[in-house]
Amino acid sequence: MQVLITGGAGLLGARLARELLKRGTLTNAQGEQTPITRITLLDVVPARGFDDPRIQIVTGDIADEKVIDSVLTPQTQSIFHLAAIVSGQAEADFELGMRINFDATRLILERARKNGNCPRVVFTSSVAVFGGDLPAVVPDAQVLTPQSSYGAQKVMGELLVNDYSRKGFIDGRALRMPTVCVRPGAPNKAASSFASGIIREPLNGAEAICPVAPETPMWLLSPRHAIESLIHGHDIDGSLFGSSRALSLPGLATTVSEMVAALERVVGAEVVKRIRWQPDPAIIRIVNTWPGNFATVRGDALGFQRDASFDDIVRGYIEDESIRVV
Amino acid sequence: MQVLITGGAGLLGARLARELLKRGTLTNAQGEQTPITRITLLDVVPARGFDDPRIQIVTGDIADEKVIDSVLTPQTQSIFHLAAIVSGQAEADFELGMRINFDATRLILERARKNGNCPRVVFTSSVAVFGGDLPAVVPDAQVLTPQSSYGAQKVMGELLVNDYSRKGFIDGRALRMPTVCVRPGAPNKAASSFASGIIREPLNGAEAICPVAPETPMWLLSPRHAIESLIHGHDIDGSLFGSSRALSLPGLATTVSEMVAALERVVGAEVVKRIRWQPDPAIIRIVNTWPGNFATVRGDALGFQRDASFDDIVRGYIEDESIRVV
Repeated sequence: MQVLITGGAGLLGARLARELLKRGTLTNAQGEQTPITRITLLDVVPARGFDDPRIQIVTGDIADEKVIDSVLTPQTQSIFHLAAIVSGQAEADFELGMRINFDATRLILERARKNGNCPRVVFTSSVAVFGGDLPAVVPDAQVLTPQSSYGAQKVMGELLVNDYSRKGFIDGRALRMPTVCVRPGAPNKAASSFASGIIREPLNGAEAICPVAPETPMWLLSPRHAIESLIHGHDIDGSLFGSSRALSLPGLATTVSEMVAALERVVGAEVVKRIRWQPDPAIIRIVNTWPGNFATVRGDALGFQRDASFDDIVRGYIEDESIRVV
Repeated sequence: MQVLITGGAGLLGARLARELLKRGTLTNAQGEQTPITRITLLDVVPARGFDDPRIQIVTGDIADEKVIDSVLTPQTQSIFHLAAIVSGQAEADFELGMRINFDATRLILERARKNGNCPRVVFTSSVAVFGGDLPAVVPDAQVLTPQSSYGAQKVMGELLVNDYSRKGFIDGRALRMPTVCVRPGAPNKAASSFASGIIREPLNGAEAICPVAPETPMWLLSPRHAIESLIHGHDIDGSLFGSSRALSLPGLATTVSEMVAALERVVGAEVVKRIRWQPDPAIIRIVNTWPGNFATVRGDALGFQRDASFDDIVRGYIEDESIRVV
């Protein structure tokens, strides 16, 4: 079977591709594990580090109809739509956020509808769909009142995935990702970028700025469990989702201070001293609209897995990235 | 001040225009009642029966950018966006529903954003935003899981109205209308068309087909109260809506059999005999996804009014339409 991954050069897209190459199969429309013959990685920059004949690397704008038409054909049976403009940037540039987070999503679903082969579509949504007056623990049935353009665009994507699935145009699944942490590489413009930065930079021997208070609640998912969740979300029977194809993935509920304490337990007090606490009102305003804990009854029942502790997340990051702690 | 009404040739659009002409004022951005100098009625067919210099009648496609640019200028301070493809038709013609219910809404909000004058926008949403597993009485905090394309498109419109308002591009209000009943004139393609038909046709001496069961719960609003709600929703301070500009309007909770009993009380048993009960699975399927009762705590607190009884609704219809019962 042929697979399309948008955002294929990003952290999750590239890791997902590597994991799929290793496994070699995905569930097809008949519910059978089927050999993967091609994985197309679409992104604005070329995906790097692949040397496998099944990988096709395409560089282009996902909001460009010609680009989507070239990568999404009636032979594409599985789509992982991960590409997005992150929260901080979508808030700063409204038009860009609408174009990439909403219009491109619609373009992909429309191409899939016209292809007529009802592909499985895994769409990454976000906890940013929640906002406003929220309970301390957000239930599956929480009404969605996003307080950011990014969150509003993700809800609109969820609605399309739902309606296209209900109509039989696609077999969609919209998974609300907790904050993915620890992300390797450079900081990005997501309001949540600090969550990885305060772990990654000190481990690299560099100073990190934490723009939020220590008691800030966080809802996290490691890259390892994120990839597992995307594949699991693809492979399970779509009808199990019931009347909504969108759900909140299980995550680890913690706080910034607990994250720092875990880092200290794993690598010692010297590393933690590299974190500088410097409040940023713009980031605090966005992050404070995100809840820190969820009751993910549906996600748990469907077999999605969460990280056991932040200590495990730190250790997994050190292992995955071959970090030599200095 | 200048006012734009989309769907201006329709039942609600034309009645709203007449009521605004009679009142002569609307609340402006500073919260002051201000003389209305122009009401532009935009629709695919020309609005009829107006003879007032303040009325401008425009015929055009609301999903056509040139049409919107011509009627929506920086002088337009108030927009009532009522135009829509109704539920049954949006379900049958997915592309048309998306184009009119979603794309045209976005076009109007985009033009308003670019005009830069932050107009008040009243957007008519619908109880079709609800669906799936619903409690007997739907609370304000009910999660939205629409089970029709019309419902999904209305939620997407609500999300845009919310985000555009949060960003200060418009001062929006999305009002979820109960089923408007009794509608004069011909049946339309809304799945709810029968609700008016079973009252209107027998009063006209004609047979009416009721496609749903007598015990079917209905959530209704008379045209009189609908117009009152639209104007009230426009005139109150937008900040009173809190973290969501969308709310369910108060309505009358009744059943089809209670509606027929009210008709009999008002005009006698002979008229009621003209109703023929003939189940239509396609209509039953859609109508059964709509809840029949709501706890509209927010709408009540904001001063929106509901009809007192269906008897009142029947009497109001007979009076408004100058019906001579035969």
